[in-house]
Amino acid sequence: MSQKPSIPQGTRDFSPLEMARRRYIFSKIENVFRSYGFKQIETPSFENLSTLTGKYGDEGDKLLFKILNSGDYLSKAPSDLVKPENSKELIKYIADRGLRYDLTVPFARYVVMHQHEFSFPFKRFQIQPVWRADRPQKGRYREFYQCDADIVGSDSLIYEAELTSIYDKAFADLNIPVSIRINNRKILEGIAIDCGFGDQFVAFTVIIDKLDKIGEERVKEELGVLGGDAEKAISLLSQRVFSIDSVTELRGKLPNDIAQKGCDELEEIANYLQYTNLQNEVLLDTTLARGLNYYTGTIYEVLAKEVKMGSIGGGGRYDDLTGIFGLKDVSGVGISFGADRIYDVLLEMSAFPEMNADFTQVLICPMDEESKIVAFELAQNCRNNSIRTEVYPEASKLKKQLGYADSNQIPFAVIIGENERLSGNYSVKNLTSGEQQSLNTEELIKLIHSV
Amino acid sequence: MSQKPSIPQGTRDFSPLEMARRRYIFSKIENVFRSYGFKQIETPSFENLSTLTGKYGDEGDKLLFKILNSGDYLSKAPSDLVKPENSKELIKYIADRGLRYDLTVPFARYVVMHQHEFSFPFKRFQIQPVWRADRPQKGRYREFYQCDADIVGSDSLIYEAELTSIYDKAFADLNIPVSIRINNRKILEGIAIDCGFGDQFVAFTVIIDKLDKIGEERVKEELGVLGGDAEKAISLLSQRVFSIDSVTELRGKLPNDIAQKGCDELEEIANYLQYTNLQNEVLLDTTLARGLNYYTGTIYEVLAKEVKMGSIGGGGRYDDLTGIFGLKDVSGVGISFGADRIYDVLLEMSAFPEMNADFTQVLICPMDEESKIVAFELAQNCRNNSIRTEVYPEASKLKKQLGYADSNQIPFAVIIGENERLSGNYSVKNLTSGEQQSLNTEELIKLIHSV
Repeated sequence: MSQKPSIPQGTRDFSPLEMARRRYIFSKIENVFRSYGFKQIETPSFENLSTLTGKYGDEGDKLLFKILNSGDYLSKAPSDLVKPENSKELIKYIADRGLRYDLTVPFARYVVMHQHEFSFPFKRFQIQPVWRADRPQKGRYREFYQCDADIVGSDSLIYEAELTSIYDKAFADLNIPVSIRINNRKILEGIAIDCGFGDQFVAFTVIIDKLDKIGEERVKEELGVLGGDAEKAISLLSQRVFSIDSVTELRGKLPNDIAQKGCDELEEIANYLQYTNLQNEVLLDTTLARGLNYYTGTIYEVLAKEVKMGSIGGGGRYDDLTGIFGLKDVSGVGISFGADRIYDVLLEMSAFPEMNADFTQVLICPMDEESKIVAFELAQNCRNNSIRTEVYPEASKLKKQLGYADSNQIPFAVIIGENERLSGNYSVKNLTSGEQQSLNTEELIKLIHSV
Repeated sequence: MSQKPSIPQGTRDFSPLEMARRRYIFSKIENVFRSYGFKQIETPSFENLSTLTGKYGDEGDKLLFKILNSGDYLSKAPSDLVKPENSKELIKYIADRGLRYDLTVPFARYVVMHQHEFSFPFKRFQIQPVWRADRPQKGRYREFYQCDADIVGSDSLIYEAELTSIYDKAFADLNIPVSIRINNRKILEGIAIDCGFGDQFVAFTVIIDKLDKIGEERVKEELGVLGGDAEKAISLLSQRVFSIDSVTELRGKLPNDIAQKGCDELEEIANYLQYTNLQNEVLLDTTLARGLNYYTGTIYEVLAKEVKMGSIGGGGRYDDLTGIFGLKDVSGVGISFGADRIYDVLLEMSAFPEMNADFTQVLICPMDEESKIVAFELAQNCRNNSIRTEVYPEASKLKKQLGYADSNQIPFAVIIGENERLSGNYSVKNLTSGEQQSLNTEELIKLIHSV
């Protein structure tokens, strides 16, 4: 009995062309990570649920994919709990593991478990899929890749400057003009305190975070409900080119120590960035809040300038991420690239280069049964000379064989019939120009190496 | 509250060194795949359970990791089924998806779903993790990688010759001497029929498959129970160097048409292989059965010669794998490399090369606060010249900074204090030789490029 096959909602197959394009993105990002000394690690696809739950808020917990325990999975549950209405309470008895939700929490777990195998500061990058049981929609998948670089074990602001420069370089290498936004949670905190939202800082940042989405008027309304001075807060929230001068200007408007500390940090970063050539704009953006509560200092967000598409990168400094796993007082800072959105941006900009670098260069076409052995031998010869080569597996009509070359974008066909077999000179057809010439093995190899 | 972190049984974290070594293995295999014209695809980590169940036998079904449905997952189950004793019956109501168990079934599903996007024969490779809820033991993990290359849509035996050559080349490139075993299920079938096991072919192959493990005597006993002529069967099962002559010799002993057909196929493959230089031994091994029932022609298995470690590769021809998904009569043939076992073999042989190709080349060491900016600028300069560079983030004692270089195997340190800052000539220390010299930026870049 056959079944019509399908794949789960929110997941994707990747074709050879899509794979080549994805690898192009990963390798550009990876090369920049490596040039700054980040080293690659990988963590398992699933973690103990105890590692993951409670780290992403209640919403996040709901979006975790949970793996059913093996065998008689109900045997560990109290029998009176095994009832149709107890879905939620039962979970902890029947599922011990869950799929990775992001790369940050597994990394924090990794740092604590392996802290004696490396020296701090530890710079790692990680490019792996993550899974979220979110409602699928355009640009949102249930399986997608994150590319993260983090440094833990140092609070030096030189790393903030380097991470800014990594964003700048990677997007320049990908030919995507971007706007890199930078802010400091201490400035937001200072503004919150100054305007009377000090004891509702989290609620304050959540509302500020919606500025782009719902506009200034509605943000004012929502802030008003919290009871502080919404007018004043809004007036302090703005975007300007990131420079020492702009930080000094902002500093003048912010009275309290917390905000001043945030300004100090931004000033030091701006000072470093004077000493490198940035190719993209960097904006000091006091409206930038980022949802995640574990950020305590610098925060980043990256937007594509030519395509409308949420943030394609984000990150920041966190002062105690490993604390939840028992390793206190380890400051870290990191950034993430959203590979799937970057893919969509490049597609929309038509900015992918030609992707034939890894594809077959030569198709060898046997015209009769006797030529198949000669075709096999010639192909092995080409491969030994670093030429990616295929043999058409049957002595089919030439048209059919060239059709295969065409649909696989193979640029050269080598035709072998009785004449060619006996003379050792093969008909070599350039399938782009249509040009055809008669070449022996050595000349063929030379030709392919020359293009 | 902190928790002591751990990872699920049978899973692993990979350190930077382990990642470098794994990528070394993948890239060697991938390069050979590409030189034969295979193109990369990827499929989702989880599939609908209906795609996976029933494809790997009852044992396989038990080893599938199942993902609990989201939300109120018990709501779709008949209420009287939600009882502690119904673990097995409940599964289909509470879990719609499962983690990939191998790469072959998802590939068959891919071929059927995307058959109009490519032309046959379709050559794909795929390097991705798979998951099995097996009991973990040495060399057996619950998450491990497979590297598969398959061709579907042709029954040409030229592909069997090419796949043999791919095994040969990839293991030669990895410096692992191997024994490539080849057989044909039709020969096994012929022997089974000839010796009176014809109507119990599957049971016959399962017992033959245990020859290595339990020895000839016990195999004879077990075959005896099936009722055929065990003595005769055993006498036909042997290993010899794979060549046209050895196939002809075998052919003489096997009377029936099915076995003769198997000999024809092996002879054609042997004929192709005369026209290439193999670097490893290829054995015609009539004891080779392979457990999987979907194989119908050639079968392969690869063993490391210098390390005792199950098979590190296997594959074969299947005549109707896509039939289960509604696409009939598409013959395919493929091979798989067991990356994790190959890793263990290389480790045991101490055959991994040095893995510093992607690691940091230069550490810049600021000796005072003022030098940090200079260090940052010099590092950016080095990176722009394709040198992987780190800045030590604090003006710590030199000993501490060099300790960081040492534990990260960074070969050069550039020391910047007041003198160096003012003169523009930096102290460059070769940390392997201990040699130290004073160089300006340009000279430093030239030195690093020269090593």
